[in-house]
Amino acid sequence: MRAAIYNGPHAITVGERPDPVVQEPTDAVVRVVLGCVCGSDLWYYRGESPHALGPIGHEFIGVIDAVGSDVRGLAAGDFVVAPFTYCDGTCANCRAGVPSQCMNGGSFGNHGIDGGQGEAVRVPLATTTLVRVPGSDHADEILRSLAALSDVMCTGHHAAVCGGVRPGNVVAVIGDGAVGLCAIIAARRLGAARIIALSGNPVRQALAGEFGATDILAERGDAAVAAVKELTLGVGVDAALECVGTGQSLATALAIARAGSTVGAIGAPHNIDFSVMDAVVYRNIGLRGGVSPARAYIPELLDDVLSGRINPGRVFDFETTLDSLVDAYDAMNERRAIKALIRVRTV
Amino acid sequence: MRAAIYNGPHAITVGERPDPVVQEPTDAVVRVVLGCVCGSDLWYYRGESPHALGPIGHEFIGVIDAVGSDVRGLAAGDFVVAPFTYCDGTCANCRAGVPSQCMNGGSFGNHGIDGGQGEAVRVPLATTTLVRVPGSDHADEILRSLAALSDVMCTGHHAAVCGGVRPGNVVAVIGDGAVGLCAIIAARRLGAARIIALSGNPVRQALAGEFGATDILAERGDAAVAAVKELTLGVGVDAALECVGTGQSLATALAIARAGSTVGAIGAPHNIDFSVMDAVVYRNIGLRGGVSPARAYIPELLDDVLSGRINPGRVFDFETTLDSLVDAYDAMNERRAIKALIRVRTV
Repeated sequence: MRAAIYNGPHAITVGERPDPVVQEPTDAVVRVVLGCVCGSDLWYYRGESPHALGPIGHEFIGVIDAVGSDVRGLAAGDFVVAPFTYCDGTCANCRAGVPSQCMNGGSFGNHGIDGGQGEAVRVPLATTTLVRVPGSDHADEILRSLAALSDVMCTGHHAAVCGGVRPGNVVAVIGDGAVGLCAIIAARRLGAARIIALSGNPVRQALAGEFGATDILAERGDAAVAAVKELTLGVGVDAALECVGTGQSLATALAIARAGSTVGAIGAPHNIDFSVMDAVVYRNIGLRGGVSPARAYIPELLDDVLSGRINPGRVFDFETTLDSLVDAYDAMNERRAIKALIRVRTV
Repeated sequence: MRAAIYNGPHAITVGERPDPVVQEPTDAVVRVVLGCVCGSDLWYYRGESPHALGPIGHEFIGVIDAVGSDVRGLAAGDFVVAPFTYCDGTCANCRAGVPSQCMNGGSFGNHGIDGGQGEAVRVPLATTTLVRVPGSDHADEILRSLAALSDVMCTGHHAAVCGGVRPGNVVAVIGDGAVGLCAIIAARRLGAARIIALSGNPVRQALAGEFGATDILAERGDAAVAAVKELTLGVGVDAALECVGTGQSLATALAIARAGSTVGAIGAPHNIDFSVMDAVVYRNIGLRGGVSPARAYIPELLDDVLSGRINPGRVFDFETTLDSLVDAYDAMNERRAIKALIRVRTV
């Protein structure tokens, strides 16, 4: 099969890999329909973080081609969403609601595990990993939103869940990338009455508004803090959702969070050189976040995608084919695209 | 009146201060029965953190001497517990459950506000600050536990609440000071099935066991992490309660916390030179904690003290009078005492 291969920083090629087959009785093989490029893929593309050479891409949806003898509830021909990590569903961490930390799991598209940026994927622990999509002949708009469930929408949702967003809340979203935009969808879905989006980019501001942001602030740093404080009569927001991961964005989130609230922090940490403990202790600001337990969230979000209540697929503003994959990396790396979709095959 | 005065590091004297009187219609004047020395008092005593010169001590119980014309529900002669901060009960932070962050409040025993280490205290915002104790002629053991409600028991309780302790949980308490010991009481009270106390001090180990610790570990640092991991089959604890505030204790708490859990962190930060964000994001470990909203907790804990269900006053293993107050600071500073009680007058 053809698949993307990471050969080192700025060296991604699309070439031949062995066709995946069922190796363990718990495996399934999935033919990829749509894959995506994640913001985190850019880190190793740029050489900012390590990544094993070999297959890449951890977001995909597709059709099951074959299942092992121990796979339950799934069959060849089923259309499925894959969360970006696989999990056994039974370890202590899975049972505690964090399959992203499965003690027997791992990530797609790293350490030799097939990636979603390829024609097919061997999925370990398929029964507890893949989520079957009911119905057939879904419109392309729905397919794009299903692809968003693989990671970005679940990650934005995790920010909102971790921030404890409740009906009537005033929420601020720091970060106008695809995850931040999905966090707006999630905050609105959880009932936020007011959603303040921090974005200076007109295209992203427009999408933020479409997703439910009620206030858009173009300010950054101290000016952003002052603007949010003014909007909230000096109190701060009920939930600040940190979707960037830099020291400045985290400092902004902590500064605009109201006393007693929790910052929902899912931005992967980059250059954070301060301890947050003064805010935690002296201002009673909590911190929760992390790698999204996507497998735990997909079922409830799936219903909303299929009914059209949420349209996270709107974050894909760039689309290409597997053979032109590198164009997608470049478009995201140069911030010409919010998020790129890789169209691999038709359903 | 006689009261303790902070004149600078290692220079606390007991001398004359003006008798407090009602200055605002919302004030009450309380004659102190029992005062306490807090672990945080030692910081400025040692010169480790700044403190205004003047009255000190933020923990006390006593009898109301006079109330202003706007005070409701309290009268001269009432026996009361004072939380260590005063609050208006109506600002956005008070309404959100964090009166410790009252936008119109402040702390006793600092910035010229009378302290609990003196014969009397002018209490601002008395109606919403003081908690009346029902009944009379309480045994001395009960009085000592009521004094513990002023700060230390509420702070230990805050650690357990922030850590999300629920019935059946496995909890670890890092820190065997008075707050850590009260966190054990709180964890047991909230239904923890197993409470692992980290302590190498035989006297404190014994009190930890009396308060409900089921396992005592004398190890520190990496050895403590390994021991807790072994006790929990590699999973970690459902709630790690950080009651010290150093980099090592916080690192231990994060390391023994199970994925998806929240560290209840109330240790005031000292020499924490690392960002916790890797644990938050890559391990889904939350952090909550801070200055205890004592006024919000005292009513429910008061019932348990009066009924004898909890005995946090057992943390006071040193007792002296106001005139010999400095002995109490020295005993705590030299770790000869867990916590010191100052007996000011009889009820």
